[in-house]
Amino acid sequence: MADPQTVKAAPTAARRHHDPEVRGFASDNYAGAHPEVLAALALANGGHQVAYGEDEYTDHLQRVMHSHFGPTAEAFPVFNGTGANVTALQALTDRWGAVICAESAHINVDEGGAPERMGGLKLLTVPTPDGKLTPELIDRQAWGWEDEHRAMPQVVSITQNTELGTVYTPAEIRAIVEHAHGHGMKVHLDGARIANAAASLDVPMRTFTNAVGVDVLSYGGTKNGMLFGEAVVVLNPDAVSHMKHLRKMSMQLASKMRFVSVQLEALLARDLWLRNARHSNAMAKRLADGVRGVDGVEILYPVQANAVFARLPNAVTERLQKRFRFYFWDEAAGDVRWMCAFDTTEQDVDAFVQALKEEMAA
Amino acid sequence: MADPQTVKAAPTAARRHHDPEVRGFASDNYAGAHPEVLAALALANGGHQVAYGEDEYTDHLQRVMHSHFGPTAEAFPVFNGTGANVTALQALTDRWGAVICAESAHINVDEGGAPERMGGLKLLTVPTPDGKLTPELIDRQAWGWEDEHRAMPQVVSITQNTELGTVYTPAEIRAIVEHAHGHGMKVHLDGARIANAAASLDVPMRTFTNAVGVDVLSYGGTKNGMLFGEAVVVLNPDAVSHMKHLRKMSMQLASKMRFVSVQLEALLARDLWLRNARHSNAMAKRLADGVRGVDGVEILYPVQANAVFARLPNAVTERLQKRFRFYFWDEAAGDVRWMCAFDTTEQDVDAFVQALKEEMAA
Amino acid sequence: MADPQTVKAAPTAARRHHDPEVRGFASDNYAGAHPEVLAALALANGGHQVAYGEDEYTDHLQRVMHSHFGPTAEAFPVFNGTGANVTALQALTDRWGAVICAESAHINVDEGGAPERMGGLKLLTVPTPDGKLTPELIDRQAWGWEDEHRAMPQVVSITQNTELGTVYTPAEIRAIVEHAHGHGMKVHLDGARIANAAASLDVPMRTFTNAVGVDVLSYGGTKNGMLFGEAVVVLNPDAVSHMKHLRKMSMQLASKMRFVSVQLEALLARDLWLRNARHSNAMAKRLADGVRGVDGVEILYPVQANAVFARLPNAVTERLQKRFRFYFWDEAAGDVRWMCAFDTTEQDVDAFVQALKEEMAA
Amino acid sequence: MADPQTVKAAPTAARRHHDPEVRGFASDNYAGAHPEVLAALALANGGHQVAYGEDEYTDHLQRVMHSHFGPTAEAFPVFNGTGANVTALQALTDRWGAVICAESAHINVDEGGAPERMGGLKLLTVPTPDGKLTPELIDRQAWGWEDEHRAMPQVVSITQNTELGTVYTPAEIRAIVEHAHGHGMKVHLDGARIANAAASLDVPMRTFTNAVGVDVLSYGGTKNGMLFGEAVVVLNPDAVSHMKHLRKMSMQLASKMRFVSVQLEALLARDLWLRNARHSNAMAKRLADGVRGVDGVEILYPVQANAVFARLPNAVTERLQKRFRFYFWDEAAGDVRWMCAFDTTEQDVDAFVQALKEEMAA
Repeated sequence: MADPQTVKAAPTAARRHHDPEVRGFASDNYAGAHPEVLAALALANGGHQVAYGEDEYTDHLQRVMHSHFGPTAEAFPVFNGTGANVTALQALTDRWGAVICAESAHINVDEGGAPERMGGLKLLTVPTPDGKLTPELIDRQAWGWEDEHRAMPQVVSITQNTELGTVYTPAEIRAIVEHAHGHGMKVHLDGARIANAAASLDVPMRTFTNAVGVDVLSYGGTKNGMLFGEAVVVLNPDAVSHMKHLRKMSMQLASKMRFVSVQLEALLARDLWLRNARHSNAMAKRLADGVRGVDGVEILYPVQANAVFARLPNAVTERLQKRFRFYFWDEAAGDVRWMCAFDTTEQDVDAFVQALKEEMAA
Repeated sequence: MADPQTVKAAPTAARRHHDPEVRGFASDNYAGAHPEVLAALALANGGHQVAYGEDEYTDHLQRVMHSHFGPTAEAFPVFNGTGANVTALQALTDRWGAVICAESAHINVDEGGAPERMGGLKLLTVPTPDGKLTPELIDRQAWGWEDEHRAMPQVVSITQNTELGTVYTPAEIRAIVEHAHGHGMKVHLDGARIANAAASLDVPMRTFTNAVGVDVLSYGGTKNGMLFGEAVVVLNPDAVSHMKHLRKMSMQLASKMRFVSVQLEALLARDLWLRNARHSNAMAKRLADGVRGVDGVEILYPVQANAVFARLPNAVTERLQKRFRFYFWDEAAGDVRWMCAFDTTEQDVDAFVQALKEEMAA
Repeated sequence: MADPQTVKAAPTAARRHHDPEVRGFASDNYAGAHPEVLAALALANGGHQVAYGEDEYTDHLQRVMHSHFGPTAEAFPVFNGTGANVTALQALTDRWGAVICAESAHINVDEGGAPERMGGLKLLTVPTPDGKLTPELIDRQAWGWEDEHRAMPQVVSITQNTELGTVYTPAEIRAIVEHAHGHGMKVHLDGARIANAAASLDVPMRTFTNAVGVDVLSYGGTKNGMLFGEAVVVLNPDAVSHMKHLRKMSMQLASKMRFVSVQLEALLARDLWLRNARHSNAMAKRLADGVRGVDGVEILYPVQANAVFARLPNAVTERLQKRFRFYFWDEAAGDVRWMCAFDTTEQDVDAFVQALKEEMAA
Repeated sequence: MADPQTVKAAPTAARRHHDPEVRGFASDNYAGAHPEVLAALALANGGHQVAYGEDEYTDHLQRVMHSHFGPTAEAFPVFNGTGANVTALQALTDRWGAVICAESAHINVDEGGAPERMGGLKLLTVPTPDGKLTPELIDRQAWGWEDEHRAMPQVVSITQNTELGTVYTPAEIRAIVEHAHGHGMKVHLDGARIANAAASLDVPMRTFTNAVGVDVLSYGGTKNGMLFGEAVVVLNPDAVSHMKHLRKMSMQLASKMRFVSVQLEALLARDLWLRNARHSNAMAKRLADGVRGVDGVEILYPVQANAVFARLPNAVTERLQKRFRFYFWDEAAGDVRWMCAFDTTEQDVDAFVQALKEEMAA
């Protein structure tokens, strides 16, 4: 592992500007990179490798991905989640196509309008109780294919696990896929936290993706312990074409791609992806368990992955935020989000629960 | 430095798939990362840092940038060069604006149409003898501001050093800026290899950027020794607004931005940027000097940075490509490009020149 | 020149392919052009006029518009409503801007995704009971201006009268404008049926537009009796710039613009706009009055303009559609829409009501 | 009802604001509409017709188009030339596609960047001596289909007759089509003045369009005598799909489409299109013949249609422009353009030639 001792001795001109012992519950991308991921970078360094994805690491990544998603899967590493989603959705739609998604979907609320502006994509949104679409909810937007006045629904995009920390069962996704395919629509899965979903369900990732017919996947690496990097993973090769052109024109083509691919390899070649996910899920469960008994604090959704949503008095939240970093989710409602990461410790959780109790009692 | 010995011992699941001793002349982004840059990543790792650019490293980067570009400079780290350019050019144009650039500009020929598709930008191109614009050449497209039938010229974009390995003098850029500003246009500098230009001119980077009035800069880190990462550097704050919104919607916002910023710090806090650039420039000069005397090989442009363009018989090129990786630039004309990187060695160059002589004689 | 005499006798190769005595209740754009509008075309014909809007008719149109909307109003004739809306909304937003509108807004449901695809606009939609926004409803989307992850709310777009045939009072629009302006947002009014709204309220159009602070208006001519043609009317010159460039790049610039402008003049120079609107409103009221007493037919929204929405048994609807053309609005719910036009006659309405009674009794 | 009698007497509020006896040489869209076209509008008026293209006139137009372009042709009426071109080119390209065209093409220089901004299209331009592409010229941009860094050449777009008044022979177009098809590219023909080209060649329009393999045509009606209106004509149905969706989202769908279609019928059902074109061509020839002998005036291109390009002293041009309206084409070079229209008279031409002689002699 990249021994901090050794690293510290490196004659780099950069300096450390932060306290590596401070962690909070704001987001899983407040965490850094897993040391095994960092170590992988050094392995891939040195010498020349063909740029823009023709390197040995990206080639090898395909085999790693096959072990998870079957032999037809093809991974296209990209920089970030928005880039993965917009590239994938462009690939799945004609110019006149639209995307059905939950109102709470990241593509709708957190991507700065990139799907619309960069992809020219119309999103057809549906309110959901828990971030999860169903065939019935999809039907609220799945109509009018022949009507030129309507952007044509061509894709259903779901997030696994959802932005609200809930997890689709494989059967639920299968039902969505069958419904979508039955209407000639394709299915995209935003897997920014796909590892957490697999850990939560305790099944391989393929069980709720290609095994149930998902066409294209945004594979999330950053929140799972990478420095940066995601991949568009095409599960159904018939669903798309010219992914490389689309990735390039979407400004998501890394020149030194080996450094994205080797990080994904570090996660996926053995079980780091799962260890990290299980750990962050377990920490969220520990946190939820810890606060569940506290009077005046309400857990809002099933805690199925690494997120805990809760409602508590805003005054308490504000005092607590001075001790641990985390965000309001809906300030008007008094809702907050507590996220656990691969590096969240039991001590972190216990100290947080203790602090919450103190502030509730204050 | 991140001792490979130590790193090799890390229990990462990733494996080495390439020979770190093999290098060629295909591109400066075939090279990996400089060890000092890699070491900086470990420094920045650990603990939690606010995501999306509110971290300590990105904050500190501003001070580093000030030391190079003056106190009004503000850096917005992004993922890659196309992302930097398209973000910067959107910032500098209204919806109805157009960008004057050399026909050979990267934004015109190497970005997969991203400026047009993602940015909605019309490029008004001008053929140049050597990749360099001049006020006279700009005037071929600088007209018609009042004519709604014409996309309005609002920006002149130049590349320093150019895609043809030539370098603008500060005076040349000043003349362009004055001309552009005189017409109410702004100036963008694509600095994918800005360090090489500074090394070539032997002046600080500010001498040919903010000192002569350039408004916005795409600062190139990848080719200078980073794993990935560039920055839009705003030199004239009055020229743009809402850069953060533009970066986000352009899919260029890194969640764990500390890992981009600390790489830039590693380059720029002291002189790594300059050492790397001087070295690759010197290697290109050595290469050009080596081949200059070879009958039948013509050097095409002044070798002012880390690129050598040459014309030689295609049959020789094809044999040589079996020994060293490099690209045709214009196969019909017999033109090739040889790029040197920060890690190109004198032995690499000498072996290449020797091989060239052998193949020319074969 | 196009002497009306000549027009009459003109040996045109075109033939009549329809029965000019057949009318239905499907849409106000199933109607043709008002004869006075048609006559105006002949007046404007003959001789040469500067193309692209520098003609005398477009110049005169400004004065006509001033008489309705005050001296700062400036009209930019365009081809159709989608073109007017997308041009106007681009003018009112930065690249990073978004538009708050009712979920039922034409821009959201009937423009084929043009706002997103062509304008790069993110729509932030709000469900409404009757197609009308309120400050409270706007607040569901009016937040997050500083958050780069969110497309920035910069415009509130309302439709007067709404797609559901309801009409905002001037006070209601004033409240929306004050609320929007208070948040730094601008207000766009989609006036595809603005004349009907004015007729319904019995006030001048300015009373609920510039008098209450609306910034930009899509002025609707087609449904009011023109062959084609709308106008973007800028009421607040400080709210926009370069409308001509935006109109051109939005493919809405008519070369022979005199023929759009003179149609608008025919409507607006005297009272044709109002006569047409009053008549179609009166016909809708007559229709609603006629069916109100019929058992099993429910009128769904206040009938304030020229649309009647009703709920009745689908079987009845289907039989009735064989006799008169009209559309389902929501087939699942049994909702239909009956539109009256400037050329709907009392006999048309009475025959329709009679037919409805017969089919309900069948 | 639009009784021609009524039309004559119609008490329209519009007034005549121009002198219908004044004509110039600025542009063929300075002219108004041909009286036979205007008469057709009255024929199509009255009664209700299904909106958005499901009317009897648009249906009949298909048969008229078949008589010109064969039974597979399908016409999609749109508003203007830019709209026709951008709709057609979107239909012919994937998201990653680019369009090869002459540098002088209308899509490149006169459409306000709409192809790039609205269509997301990259134009790959080629300088030409006379506005005409050739297979050799096309080859300067026809390469790199596998290279994701390059927008993929998928369409060759030519203009017939060209923006410089020159006309491709059918054999020239056939050669371009065969070359383009051989590379897997499709061919678009911008026929803004297609009637003039047919008149010039004295062949049916199909001879240089579908007979030689052109895939999609922008059919120009406005310059040929319509008030407004063009059509995208699909000649090769396999080349495109979902034209109606593309037209709608491109803001080119007329609600009262009968009024576009009947104008096209008036032109095309018999020979009005050809009479108008022959006349304007003849006037251009008369004009060119008249000035050819004048010392100091140089005709720049072959005068094959209704445009005359000439070079003469700027001082003369400026004096002449006070007497007749026309434009500089390239003021620096002293180049002007004189356009003739369907309503240009022999007297107009003779008076202009006389004035030119006077000013040259002054």
